[in-house]
Amino acid sequence: MKRSIKIAVVGCSGRGKGMMGLIAEMADVEVIGVCDLYPDRVKAAQELFVKANRSEPKGYTDYRRMIDDGVKQGLEAVFCPSSWQSHVEICLYAMEAGLYVATEVGGAYSVQACWDLVRTSERTGMPCMLLENCCYGREEMAILNMVKKGLFGELVHAEGGYCHDLRHEIDNGKENRHYRLANFKHRNGELYPTHDLGPIAKYLDVNRGNRLLTLTSMASKAVGLRAWARANRPEGDELRDYAFNEGDVVTTMIKCARGETIVLTHDCSLHRPYSRRNMLQGTKGIWMEDKHSISIEGLTKLRKGHWDPDCWQDLNDFWKKYDHPLWKKFQASGVKGGHGGMDFLVLRAFFEAVQKRTQTPIDVYDTAVWMAITPLSEESIAMGSMPVPIPDFTNGKWIDPRPYVKGTYCLEEICRPGALE
Amino acid sequence: MKRSIKIAVVGCSGRGKGMMGLIAEMADVEVIGVCDLYPDRVKAAQELFVKANRSEPKGYTDYRRMIDDGVKQGLEAVFCPSSWQSHVEICLYAMEAGLYVATEVGGAYSVQACWDLVRTSERTGMPCMLLENCCYGREEMAILNMVKKGLFGELVHAEGGYCHDLRHEIDNGKENRHYRLANFKHRNGELYPTHDLGPIAKYLDVNRGNRLLTLTSMASKAVGLRAWARANRPEGDELRDYAFNEGDVVTTMIKCARGETIVLTHDCSLHRPYSRRNMLQGTKGIWMEDKHSISIEGLTKLRKGHWDPDCWQDLNDFWKKYDHPLWKKFQASGVKGGHGGMDFLVLRAFFEAVQKRTQTPIDVYDTAVWMAITPLSEESIAMGSMPVPIPDFTNGKWIDPRPYVKGTYCLEEICRPGALE
Repeated sequence: MKRSIKIAVVGCSGRGKGMMGLIAEMADVEVIGVCDLYPDRVKAAQELFVKANRSEPKGYTDYRRMIDDGVKQGLEAVFCPSSWQSHVEICLYAMEAGLYVATEVGGAYSVQACWDLVRTSERTGMPCMLLENCCYGREEMAILNMVKKGLFGELVHAEGGYCHDLRHEIDNGKENRHYRLANFKHRNGELYPTHDLGPIAKYLDVNRGNRLLTLTSMASKAVGLRAWARANRPEGDELRDYAFNEGDVVTTMIKCARGETIVLTHDCSLHRPYSRRNMLQGTKGIWMEDKHSISIEGLTKLRKGHWDPDCWQDLNDFWKKYDHPLWKKFQASGVKGGHGGMDFLVLRAFFEAVQKRTQTPIDVYDTAVWMAITPLSEESIAMGSMPVPIPDFTNGKWIDPRPYVKGTYCLEEICRPGALE
Repeated sequence: MKRSIKIAVVGCSGRGKGMMGLIAEMADVEVIGVCDLYPDRVKAAQELFVKANRSEPKGYTDYRRMIDDGVKQGLEAVFCPSSWQSHVEICLYAMEAGLYVATEVGGAYSVQACWDLVRTSERTGMPCMLLENCCYGREEMAILNMVKKGLFGELVHAEGGYCHDLRHEIDNGKENRHYRLANFKHRNGELYPTHDLGPIAKYLDVNRGNRLLTLTSMASKAVGLRAWARANRPEGDELRDYAFNEGDVVTTMIKCARGETIVLTHDCSLHRPYSRRNMLQGTKGIWMEDKHSISIEGLTKLRKGHWDPDCWQDLNDFWKKYDHPLWKKFQASGVKGGHGGMDFLVLRAFFEAVQKRTQTPIDVYDTAVWMAITPLSEESIAMGSMPVPIPDFTNGKWIDPRPYVKGTYCLEEICRPGALE
């Protein structure tokens, strides 16, 4: 049994409730406060814990009051599955109060806000972790394991995307309390970079021997949501002729200090099946998520020759040997929760760091540079796809091989040869 | 039986010989001259025609002499499957001699060379056609047919690539007469853009209502060929430590006047199965070549919901209804030749234009702007992924809906609703 910790949650909408459902099953985590701008959501969150036979958290509509109250009662950490725009201010307030903080995913609105996270974390000594669940996805973890074991050779190029037909969520045709609508109305950039960039950053040792150097972004025209509104909104409705700003497909190219390139795609307003479009290439191999396939030199049996597009091997052939040690361990004990277990794992990764009072496995430098992609891509697009520099939030600490935190959830360390197996 | 025409061929290496093998079976095309810098290749080409019971073409090592001789004997057209670097000068010389000219695919070495093609074609009245066989691929043609019939809705984004593990060709370990080696040693850019860009330009009406506006390119590090040379060249060999210039993966983003975006990938020096990575997205549908699948709103049966990545439909479900009329016609009469028939079709497209003395279905404006992507991408990469403008080689003629040439091989015209069916 781990040491019990007290946490508070800011943001009780769909995502927040899903995550709280998982937390309510964790005996070593007590939620003492829940907060949302909408009182109906606060009430529903409180009821969730009561129904799960846990003590009822106190309800708030002001996160500052919740944090101020909490620190007097032994609160140690704040988790914010709130709107994208509120993430940074909540994180800053929590760190200033001496608390660990974990934020749900989403891009920043300014580069300076990312610097604020870094400087506040450095000054207060409190970790700030972006809860990037995809870093804990089974497939992503297995690929990281293969990367660290050298299967891909020297890494050269990675791709990923957030390709998700969200037209029904962005405009659900009724009163809309979702933050995506306003973002798609007014912004134009890579709004949601971390589901793809997070795992890629792990493969490429970003902030630990490598860093993101520069990017350029390009946006297509924005016609998907208008076509959607015309088909789904009544005549005379203001959204039917709204000129959305967010391009339907936004592509971002990133260059790394070590020379690798990364291509990210944001694509949420067209008809398409869901995909994170993960692809990874090294001198010896390639992984393509959309094909659920891998091809490794000397390992994958070639058919007619290199030019034969059938020279792929199903990823299923690799699970047995290359499932990540962490995944194997948690599968044995029964991985649970949303998105195939990744939500559970990323929450446990944060809570373990709080319990042990160690650094988080995704630290404030990772959080800052992943979130910064959003405003940087907006700037690049606004200037006609000009390349823009990506700040080094570590101030040079990326050059030295910083030690990984020794912890169950440190993905990189425990998949090195001989680490756990 | 079509009118018989006399042509000459410059370039008798592997590609040239493959194409001449097809031409030798065409009763209405007589090859009166063959030319190559290497006499052994000239001889082999001459023998090819003798073996096929055709009259032996005269052999040359100087294409100027061959063209000068030919015009006195009724030569009407020149086809150059020669090295990339020689394409433009041969095309210019042929057009100046009053001949139709078709060049094999490959990028240009300067933007000015593309202007030279355009101005020379305009002044002499002689067409210049890039023989982009992929425009005549079955899958690409069927997709064009679906686009013109509105299945994808309004087009938004397209992707393509030339992803071909050519390490064994670039460095075959013996005397190397292939032009790719020198290009990979000294250049860094999108060296081979047209297999992917050609069909995409057809989907997007480039030069006929739309145009390519600007691009930015990014190159990964170049480590694939060095790793290959170290594994395959003897110790002390100069290539083992050669610092190649060409990045292993070069990504190019292009913005169109109508607002669509295009992403191209050049990827020839890493282990990977062959792919042209075609992808096309509109407001209503998506095609992904790597999955051999399509998803069309209202047509493809959704399973669990939009987020379900299984909401794809096999392309095979679409052949019956959407095979391109030209493909159906030639399949009925027995499509033949390399690369699934596309080589045969693109050659016939050129020869029909010569026979009818009409414009070619891929004209000099298409040829110029497709080839210009290579030097423009080199410029962008050299300047740190700066956006560079793409010239309007039509000088504004793209704005008016220029009529398509009425011909069997005009892909766009004959797949419009009711055109042929």
